[in-house]
Amino acid sequence: MTQITALNLPPAKDIPEATQKYLDLCQEKLGLVPNVVQAYTFDIAKLNAFTAMYNDLMLAPSGLSKLEREMVAVVVSSINRCWYCQVAHGAAVRSLSGNPALGEAMVMNWRAADLDARQTAMLTFAEKVTKTSSEVVESDRQALRDAGFTDRDIFDIAALVGFYSMSNRVASAIGMQPNPEYHAQAR
Amino acid sequence: MTQITALNLPPAKDIPEATQKYLDLCQEKLGLVPNVVQAYTFDIAKLNAFTAMYNDLMLAPSGLSKLEREMVAVVVSSINRCWYCQVAHGAAVRSLSGNPALGEAMVMNWRAADLDARQTAMLTFAEKVTKTSSEVVESDRQALRDAGFTDRDIFDIAALVGFYSMSNRVASAIGMQPNPEYHAQAR
Amino acid sequence: MTQITALNLPPAKDIPEATQKYLDLCQEKLGLVPNVVQAYTFDIAKLNAFTAMYNDLMLAPSGLSKLEREMVAVVVSSINRCWYCQVAHGAAVRSLSGNPALGEAMVMNWRAADLDARQTAMLTFAEKVTKTSSEVVESDRQALRDAGFTDRDIFDIAALVGFYSMSNRVASAIGMQPNPEYHAQAR
Amino acid sequence: MTQITALNLPPAKDIPEATQKYLDLCQEKLGLVPNVVQAYTFDIAKLNAFTAMYNDLMLAPSGLSKLEREMVAVVVSSINRCWYCQVAHGAAVRSLSGNPALGEAMVMNWRAADLDARQTAMLTFAEKVTKTSSEVVESDRQALRDAGFTDRDIFDIAALVGFYSMSNRVASAIGMQPNPEYHAQAR
Amino acid sequence: MTQITALNLPPAKDIPEATQKYLDLCQEKLGLVPNVVQAYTFDIAKLNAFTAMYNDLMLAPSGLSKLEREMVAVVVSSINRCWYCQVAHGAAVRSLSGNPALGEAMVMNWRAADLDARQTAMLTFAEKVTKTSSEVVESDRQALRDAGFTDRDIFDIAALVGFYSMSNRVASAIGMQPNPEYHAQAR
Amino acid sequence: MTQITALNLPPAKDIPEATQKYLDLCQEKLGLVPNVVQAYTFDIAKLNAFTAMYNDLMLAPSGLSKLEREMVAVVVSSINRCWYCQVAHGAAVRSLSGNPALGEAMVMNWRAADLDARQTAMLTFAEKVTKTSSEVVESDRQALRDAGFTDRDIFDIAALVGFYSMSNRVASAIGMQPNPEYHAQAR
Repeated sequence: MTQITALNLPPAKDIPEATQKYLDLCQEKLGLVPNVVQAYTFDIAKLNAFTAMYNDLMLAPSGLSKLEREMVAVVVSSINRCWYCQVAHGAAVRSLSGNPALGEAMVMNWRAADLDARQTAMLTFAEKVTKTSSEVVESDRQALRDAGFTDRDIFDIAALVGFYSMSNRVASAIGMQPNPEYHAQAR
Repeated sequence: MTQITALNLPPAKDIPEATQKYLDLCQEKLGLVPNVVQAYTFDIAKLNAFTAMYNDLMLAPSGLSKLEREMVAVVVSSINRCWYCQVAHGAAVRSLSGNPALGEAMVMNWRAADLDARQTAMLTFAEKVTKTSSEVVESDRQALRDAGFTDRDIFDIAALVGFYSMSNRVASAIGMQPNPEYHAQAR
Repeated sequence: MTQITALNLPPAKDIPEATQKYLDLCQEKLGLVPNVVQAYTFDIAKLNAFTAMYNDLMLAPSGLSKLEREMVAVVVSSINRCWYCQVAHGAAVRSLSGNPALGEAMVMNWRAADLDARQTAMLTFAEKVTKTSSEVVESDRQALRDAGFTDRDIFDIAALVGFYSMSNRVASAIGMQPNPEYHAQAR
Repeated sequence: MTQITALNLPPAKDIPEATQKYLDLCQEKLGLVPNVVQAYTFDIAKLNAFTAMYNDLMLAPSGLSKLEREMVAVVVSSINRCWYCQVAHGAAVRSLSGNPALGEAMVMNWRAADLDARQTAMLTFAEKVTKTSSEVVESDRQALRDAGFTDRDIFDIAALVGFYSMSNRVASAIGMQPNPEYHAQAR
Repeated sequence: MTQITALNLPPAKDIPEATQKYLDLCQEKLGLVPNVVQAYTFDIAKLNAFTAMYNDLMLAPSGLSKLEREMVAVVVSSINRCWYCQVAHGAAVRSLSGNPALGEAMVMNWRAADLDARQTAMLTFAEKVTKTSSEVVESDRQALRDAGFTDRDIFDIAALVGFYSMSNRVASAIGMQPNPEYHAQAR
Repeated sequence: MTQITALNLPPAKDIPEATQKYLDLCQEKLGLVPNVVQAYTFDIAKLNAFTAMYNDLMLAPSGLSKLEREMVAVVVSSINRCWYCQVAHGAAVRSLSGNPALGEAMVMNWRAADLDARQTAMLTFAEKVTKTSSEVVESDRQALRDAGFTDRDIFDIAALVGFYSMSNRVASAIGMQPNPEYHAQAR
């Protein structure tokens, strides 16, 4: 079996019941336990902090659709060239959109995709926050408002870009491998 | 009063008791509630996810000292030129080290600081993960092991770089202002 | 029907017999006429120059296997984020290698692939020539010789990087769309 | 005698008659056989593919004047800092324009030249395609149309940028030396 | 005592009377002799050339206030991450403005400061000249005129950016250490 | 007559006798008054500060030959793509070396020139100080010492890089035009 990461950090000996339930739920719903989840099982407090933030950002109510959140995830991960995150979230874009080419475009070059004005504004902001966050000024936020986003939506885009800027770096820094099942999904 | 961020996101109406306790504890221990905490009070689930991850990374047991963790925080924030994080964590480095010049060097140019081999290895890795995470290879991790870090320590450095890569982007994207009290601390 | 490029350049009125034969051969062998070929049919001299160079580089005898040539094609196209070339040549890597994950890794981050020393040397040189060709010095060529490449092989790698540096720019500059059939191939 | 390239690739043993005629024509018309041509004589198929594309781009009918094509050649080669191409095509700009300072400006900083609106639009597009082709969008092409270029002209500019992005990389990767005669020409 | 620079260049043996007077004046007025001045005492001609230019730029009449000149100094030094210059001129901004947070913002991210239109125009130009001077065009100068600057003021901004682009590089290249007294000043 | 710069800054009304003598000397020795000198005549104090520093760096005794100083000048100016400085100092390299190709190589790509180990070390350091001065560390200085440079020589290289980093930016920021006579010199 391929190692999940380049670090020797075996799972915690006593997996709490709630954690085991979460792992079982992943297996049941997704057909696999994402390697990023497995990678954190060496320390349950870290796993819980990671999954709590992930679930809030990707699954809780938001003005952004689940597809839009995954599009941001892939665009950030593409800029950072994160192997794990492009594979896993590219699959999610293909699956949620029913449009395999859209998933590929988010990975390869988001400007090549056929996007509406709202999505273009969202990804333009996401790209700037990913690459040159220190140069964000009020007119960048206003461009989002002009495209129909609320201040809460702006927060959510910023938080998504932030989250994947984090997980891209953790995954690349520790050599995280994606579950091979993702590659063939929703092609 | 200056606005804490550029977004119009007022605090939640019903602050849960546990949250209020946390805010009171901040005030008592730090003499202020950090603006980053206040910025998240519009949504208690998001606040809890953020503080859980922050507390685990910065306060839980680790092979990295609290000062080392703050040094990583400032170096990442300096590369990203995050106003909020350089101010707040620069103060923490000054305070924890009792060496104001060290805090300034982390902000201005970490290579100018007088560091030992362990700290140099840690910040060299942190800089690479911040700037070009997709180019991290096994020899980068091995350099940390050679400097005395365990695989768990490597995870912690990666997670710290990730966390501040996230919070730098959120703070800059939403125009977060630091509490003015930080500027004069531990000079 | 989607337009093949963003330019209004209809095919030449009189397609020469040899050209028509080439187009028919594409259709027969690949099940499609690649859009890059169709994009050049507005001027048969340009089409011939392009296909002559392409066929020499990708199909003529060389110390590089066809898979290795396609790997170089995708890595260059990934650095340049060319939509057309990543799609078309990513499919070729998947197909020639029988390893869908390898095609994905060439697109997403070649350092994440499990490569041998020869392939690593080849792609390290290809990346440098793509990004900073003016900094290539003798030691870069020597590293290829040390990995077992001949001077003729070095020429071929350089020529491949050059060719895709060209076609990436032409494709992106004129908004070339890939044939949709590529997306599902060899998954 | 200085070597033409850093690779040990002697000319093919049997130079075909047509090739020899081409070499003789170069000598007669230019007073030299350009080293780039000599560098390809180790393989006649590669030489033919290169010269066919070169001759089509630089000499065939186009909405761009020969001087304009050479200006694009030098600007691309300057961005890529290609020793061979700046020397050879810088001489061509000096010679075709009768304006030595124009050739120097294309090498040193095209923005310093005294250009009309058409040339400025052409070089602005050429620079973007050279540096960040993946960010080209419809408004970049429209700016060329607004400056009087046809869609065919846009193709030709893209193809020129592509060609020199290729030959710059081949020349630098194999250490190609320019013929010394170019330096003093048209000063 | 810490060395002032990484080079072994002891002060000239015979310090001329005028030089000694200048050093005494520094000590009297500033409470210290800036290390940059001491670093040049190995060669009095070089010291005189440096201080003559410095005094003209920073102290002679100009349309820019002394605070504005120091703001440019710190912004340039921040982009170049010069340890010496950020420390020394950051202190000057804090002291001249009576606003410690302004000095910090110039070091950390000038866009985070609360600036008027004139200062924003000045620092926008200063940043461009620091980072990409070869791309400065007439519209950049016109933007300064539109913000109320004269042509002489434009010269002065250019000269300030130039001067700190120089002294940042000299200081970093020779490992110059700032006087420790600066850190606590005007906090 | 072409304007010397893009700023409207006419020469001072009363040119002091010493200044006039200097201008006359330029005309006599060089056959022209360099435009950079003319550009500063609007303010005699600024002119004197500039020429004092220039003369010290370029003409005073140093371990670096005059040709080596001009080589550094051109390499820095090439990286910064300064029109004025590449033209004027490129001519100086051609003239001092009697090798026109060397002047061209300094402008176009210094790595293409046939340099000895000492010159390669000097230009490697000059390039690093020009591009990423904040990353200079002791091993960079030691590499110069290993190539035979003294600490005083290192200072001189740093000061030369600094000076041209300054004058490149001033020249580009104010649109300085080189004297046309330079183009044909020493070809």
